[in-house]
Amino acid sequence: MRKQSEKEFVKDITKMEDDFAKWYTDVIKKTDLVDYSPVKGFMVIKPYGYAIWEGIQTFLDRRFKETGHQNVYFPLLIPESLLNKEKEHVEGFAPEVAWVTHGGEEELSERLCIRPTSETIVCSMYSKWLTSYRELPYLNNQWCSVVRWEKATRPFLRTSEFLWQEGHTLHETAAQAQEETLKMLNIYIEMSENLLAIPMVAGRKSEREKFAGAKATYTIEALMHDGKALQSGTSHNLAQHFTTAFDITFQGRTGELEYPHQTSWGVSTRLIGGVIMVHSDNRGLVLPPRLAPTQVVIVPIAQKKEGVLEHVSVLYEELKAAGVRVKLDDSTEYSPGWKFNEYEMKGVPIRLEVGPRDIENGVMMAARRDTLEKVVLEREGATENVKRLLNIIHDDMLEKARKNRDDQTFVIDSYESFKIKMIESPGFAKTMWCGDEACEASVKEETGVTIRCIPFEQENLGDTCPFCGKQAKHMVYMAKAY
Amino acid sequence: MRKQSEKEFVKDITKMEDDFAKWYTDVIKKTDLVDYSPVKGFMVIKPYGYAIWEGIQTFLDRRFKETGHQNVYFPLLIPESLLNKEKEHVEGFAPEVAWVTHGGEEELSERLCIRPTSETIVCSMYSKWLTSYRELPYLNNQWCSVVRWEKATRPFLRTSEFLWQEGHTLHETAAQAQEETLKMLNIYIEMSENLLAIPMVAGRKSEREKFAGAKATYTIEALMHDGKALQSGTSHNLAQHFTTAFDITFQGRTGELEYPHQTSWGVSTRLIGGVIMVHSDNRGLVLPPRLAPTQVVIVPIAQKKEGVLEHVSVLYEELKAAGVRVKLDDSTEYSPGWKFNEYEMKGVPIRLEVGPRDIENGVMMAARRDTLEKVVLEREGATENVKRLLNIIHDDMLEKARKNRDDQTFVIDSYESFKIKMIESPGFAKTMWCGDEACEASVKEETGVTIRCIPFEQENLGDTCPFCGKQAKHMVYMAKAY
Repeated sequence: MRKQSEKEFVKDITKMEDDFAKWYTDVIKKTDLVDYSPVKGFMVIKPYGYAIWEGIQTFLDRRFKETGHQNVYFPLLIPESLLNKEKEHVEGFAPEVAWVTHGGEEELSERLCIRPTSETIVCSMYSKWLTSYRELPYLNNQWCSVVRWEKATRPFLRTSEFLWQEGHTLHETAAQAQEETLKMLNIYIEMSENLLAIPMVAGRKSEREKFAGAKATYTIEALMHDGKALQSGTSHNLAQHFTTAFDITFQGRTGELEYPHQTSWGVSTRLIGGVIMVHSDNRGLVLPPRLAPTQVVIVPIAQKKEGVLEHVSVLYEELKAAGVRVKLDDSTEYSPGWKFNEYEMKGVPIRLEVGPRDIENGVMMAARRDTLEKVVLEREGATENVKRLLNIIHDDMLEKARKNRDDQTFVIDSYESFKIKMIESPGFAKTMWCGDEACEASVKEETGVTIRCIPFEQENLGDTCPFCGKQAKHMVYMAKAY
Repeated sequence: MRKQSEKEFVKDITKMEDDFAKWYTDVIKKTDLVDYSPVKGFMVIKPYGYAIWEGIQTFLDRRFKETGHQNVYFPLLIPESLLNKEKEHVEGFAPEVAWVTHGGEEELSERLCIRPTSETIVCSMYSKWLTSYRELPYLNNQWCSVVRWEKATRPFLRTSEFLWQEGHTLHETAAQAQEETLKMLNIYIEMSENLLAIPMVAGRKSEREKFAGAKATYTIEALMHDGKALQSGTSHNLAQHFTTAFDITFQGRTGELEYPHQTSWGVSTRLIGGVIMVHSDNRGLVLPPRLAPTQVVIVPIAQKKEGVLEHVSVLYEELKAAGVRVKLDDSTEYSPGWKFNEYEMKGVPIRLEVGPRDIENGVMMAARRDTLEKVVLEREGATENVKRLLNIIHDDMLEKARKNRDDQTFVIDSYESFKIKMIESPGFAKTMWCGDEACEASVKEETGVTIRCIPFEQENLGDTCPFCGKQAKHMVYMAKAY
């Protein structure tokens, strides 16, 4: 009895116009990024999905180190008493942590939670280590997984365990902590634009939406194909909330004991969900070139003809030596047409088709995954020609994503038009807001729409809050969100 | 009230001759590699310690990929029923796992254990994925942490949580699985010799000492300064033990359903403990040059003299541009003498001292951490001269470690001389062995000494087992072990 292969489970990808959620899960299943595990809400990240995460890690790890950060590792388990030390923090996280109650055959005297985030365990150590202002700043980061018990999960977007990085820094002054908070947010924006080709709206979270325990949370928000926003990374100014709760002190310049100012910041495998929902289409994945595990696939045409395989092998070696992530598919098991479909679905940015006539003419046919156009490239200077095209694709994808976002961004002037718009063609609503938490809560309750951020780039769209009629305080971006 | 700084806790490093265990913990505390966390048996890996782990990761990750392996991520939590599927495996691991019983505010219907190793969760997915021989081999690896509830712990050597990599592969034939098992063991040996400068004894574990569920376990064993062995990496041929238990099948070349042959292999942060106990001395760490986070530290002498700082800055940029991990310490807070001690303790392989007279003479004084000798290097061609010296240091450290090990390796001919030797000057005992588990167990019970491995390089040292007098079957290495 033959088992059905994975690929056969999803014959075709559901059209996103018909069912966006199903389109998303079809894409990730059919392209082998991820699978569901036997534990509800926990996913397995398969090689192709993990290679994308490694692309994000490599970019960020380099930038973190360039900006003076060092990697560390803090324990997976946190005693309940530590989690309870910062009041807002425990209220935010306690309902969604996993509890370890037994180690080996013994019941533990105190429950331990699996880290949902590491501020508390980090602070317990920082309070032990820090002595003098001379040791500041502390600029640490860790790559790990965290667990948050979720009821409804979706691969990459919301899972009970996910991979991330979490930065944890201490500073002498409030100004330095604020500078760090924004510096790391800017590195996230740089990564989003230069690696993921995703334009972000950046700003501050409302009090209601900020991190449990933060003074201020800054966020980057991307808009998906379906008009929903995805919170893609956050950077928190924790001020002295945790450092006082954990009694972290240092001898300051005047000799007095002071509490340091703190930040934390993180992005996760959730970004991969964003890449899919911003760029991909009904044929499958469309990966931005700098992130794609395979940037170029060479498919020889009429490969049995004399000279074809030798020619593409030389081309392959040339590109590989130049640092292009290239794959040569000269397997004979499948036809070129089958291969075209396969790599298109997998989102490989450039497919190079090379047959006898191309060799004769000194050219290569380059099929762009993003536009599905074919471009003729000169064989001479292949490396430069391919690298140039990869950069063009990156720029075009970023531009297209920006245009999509802008097309789905609208200014609203009344609560009624807001409600209609959010049903008929949802996206980012730019609107004034009174700044009142009760107003924000009632809009959320009635419409499911939340304030995504108070953007750094403020515009004056009017004087009153369209939701309650009171005096307007900020311009905000609002959307339904993942 | 001023808090005591970390550094003040350990005034001096205990001499290893006086108390080896205390010397070890002094070294790791004083050089800031690691700290104890609030959860008993769990450690925090600090920046300097983590940078060493990153060196190991970088080396291995490159070699894994060069040999066709891909990274993946499997969930942290494993349902109890899965852990129970392979009989030997559950007996080996169940007594030492941590159990999650509550998620959020709900009690779970089935307990979940934090992975002590991932064979069971991996197999549950492989059984879902694999369909045909065409998909084989599966060559996957993951970098993660695992938890094993330990009663007595020591940083790096034995902790309730540790970082590691675990490879999990499937193959069509038994021969291919055996080939993979040995290939990965050889990559570990290569890493040990070329990166850590540690010579390993390699061989097969006895039945008693093998991995719970394996057909055969292969190991690399290093000898520490104190004559105890450290199991430093293992590679398991799991045969079809797990694939049958988890019903992993594929359609073979003949059309029949077959069970694949499996391997798993791993090394962990334990290796860092090995590096310390093989190379370091009473002044602190001695790091092998290719692993050292800082390979060269430049300490300017009389740095206020005209031209000194300019000169060392140029030197610094030259070395950095050539890929040397170099640090320039031109701080004025501490004297050169203080800096000498600091970097010596931290194990930086080369200290370059450059003062006005050196500049005049076109030279640099290079102080080797391993031998404590000073060498004069020409300023011209500094990069090549430094790189050459780093390689010499690596070779000398490996050779010295090999000599130390060989000096502590002895052939024994009677149980009596074995017992005396293991107390008076412990090390590796090379001896014949009958192959009988009961004999092995009784030696362990009486002396605490275990069979570390049945080495690939067999010698015939006699015909009888010195422990029981029966016919000898193998030559083995025996030692007390961490």
